Amino acid sequence: MSISIPKVVHYADVPALPVGEDAPGVTIRWLIDEPHDAAPNYALRLIEVDAGGHTPNHVHPYEHENYVLEGHGRVLIGLEWHEVGPGTVVLVPAGVRHTYENTGDSSFRFLCGIPVSRLTTQG
Amino acid sequence: MSISIPKVVHYADVPALPVGEDAPGVTIRWLIDEPHDAAPNYALRLIEVDAGGHTPNHVHPYEHENYVLEGHGRVLIGLEWHEVGPGTVVLVPAGVRHTYENTGDSSFRFLCGIPVSRLTTQG
Repeated sequence: MSISIPKVVHYADVPALPVGEDAPGVTIRWLIDEPHDAAPNYALRLIEVDAGGHTPNHVHPYEHENYVLEGHGRVLIGLEWHEVGPGTVVLVPAGVRHTYENTGDSSFRFLCGIPVSRLTTQG
Repeated sequence: MSISIPKVVHYADVPALPVGEDAPGVTIRWLIDEPHDAAPNYALRLIEVDAGGHTPNHVHPYEHENYVLEGHGRVLIGLEWHEVGPGTVVLVPAGVRHTYENTGDSSFRFLCGIPVSRLTTQG
């Protein structure tokens, strides 16, 4: 296992990467990750959804822990939609379908933590 | 192991608890935790430091992953101080001494993730 070293960076200095076709208008910044930072237990990402965009509607065997920074949207968790805005905290459990939609007219930004591969591949 | 269930809450609805004598002017909100939420891999906390306050100057065998929400401060990591403000991302590795100080004249608030007890007691 690699040893992580201290990191201090502004989020805006971390590249914003397109998420892909299943997430129109969405970019992701890997603020703390495995390949560069040797994140020991979880990766921290900042996700930005343009007006009208949405994150993938999908399911995976690990949780999300989210904190909404800016904008307005809604999140589907299982069968239920929830309105979210700045300061909303969301736990999406493992194995539950989810998607975030930007329902506002400006950028919707939130933090998203996920466990590292060592923990997600345990099932 | 408990199964976590979906959670959607505003941070302000989570109680702010005093951290203690070694952290004057500091409160902590356990946004996603083990006892209530069965956080699978890491707990998410929001820490608020009043003007003039600071978090404990301490060392522990697990990392912090931080995101500064509001205010201005500085963080000591090992022997080096770093200025931080809104949008700053910080990784404090396990086993490294650290403290956050509020150097502004308003509240300094940041998110702080830590691994759950199952993972911290391995180290």
